[in-house]
Amino acid sequence: MGFWKSWFSGSETTAGTKITPGEEYTALESVNGSPQNGDRSIVFSCDRNIDLYELEELCDAVGWSRRPLRKVKKALEHSFLVASMWEVRGTQKRLVGFARATSDHAFNATIWDVVVHPDFQGKKLGKALMKYTIKKLRSEDISNVTLFADPQVVDFYRGLGFVSDPEGIKGMFWYPN
Amino acid sequence: MGFWKSWFSGSETTAGTKITPGEEYTALESVNGSPQNGDRSIVFSCDRNIDLYELEELCDAVGWSRRPLRKVKKALEHSFLVASMWEVRGTQKRLVGFARATSDHAFNATIWDVVVHPDFQGKKLGKALMKYTIKKLRSEDISNVTLFADPQVVDFYRGLGFVSDPEGIKGMFWYPN
Repeated sequence: MGFWKSWFSGSETTAGTKITPGEEYTALESVNGSPQNGDRSIVFSCDRNIDLYELEELCDAVGWSRRPLRKVKKALEHSFLVASMWEVRGTQKRLVGFARATSDHAFNATIWDVVVHPDFQGKKLGKALMKYTIKKLRSEDISNVTLFADPQVVDFYRGLGFVSDPEGIKGMFWYPN
Repeated sequence: MGFWKSWFSGSETTAGTKITPGEEYTALESVNGSPQNGDRSIVFSCDRNIDLYELEELCDAVGWSRRPLRKVKKALEHSFLVASMWEVRGTQKRLVGFARATSDHAFNATIWDVVVHPDFQGKKLGKALMKYTIKKLRSEDISNVTLFADPQVVDFYRGLGFVSDPEGIKGMFWYPN
């Protein structure tokens, strides 16, 4: 019980009205009320208090370029939502998915850094993570949920209800002239 | 002097490390050291303490749908950068342009709500406002400056160095299935 308590009671690291972690968890592969030894559950959390080295390991696993942990820490603190997905076996937990969103806390949110560990891809867990992320944003009355999708994941996001270039709106990135 | 003092000394309305207003101002049409009666200057500021009714009036002028002021206030408080452009005549100032950006304060920023009053369009002031906005974001070490452009302003942003769909990255918006 101590593990669960500490897991879901994480406090916000920055002031403001950012989404606070609740008691929610979703068990996709096990529907037991609480995990027992030998059970294998997938659990979601919006506790932003994530071990930066564990997050780096997850990003390494999908081949992302490393980023300074100091900046990653700052980005997590100043994201509106930090969503994480965990494999839980008994009292062990492992970070297997991650996404975060910036927002003005009123109208718009933009989702960044969506990642699922390769061992957990192809199991509809990316979809579950995104549904969790969208649900959280919508529960905060954010009406405009946006993202910038690499070409290979455009269809994945389409399947979740994202539309590219609606009404001719173009995603643009600034590069120095 | 009192006017200028109060204008540029605006305090932050929310805690955090958001961009704070400095003493910068850019006079495009007048290069006098300080405005005198009869002078006409265009001045930029990142003081987020903007009169919401004046902002609403500016947005009305370009035909935007009205939004609840309570939510606009919240969005301004939680934007990383609030950039405004003012016409100054003597001791009078008038809000003639606006832009804001959300950010994780580390890697990414997304610019929203860029507006220039119709009376001030076609004078390269939109370009000046965007350059001011980008400069501010870059000065905070934000490397990825993004936005979602309506079709009629894509070329405007291209002229500023924005690229649409770089490497096939698509801007996407979520709509309920």
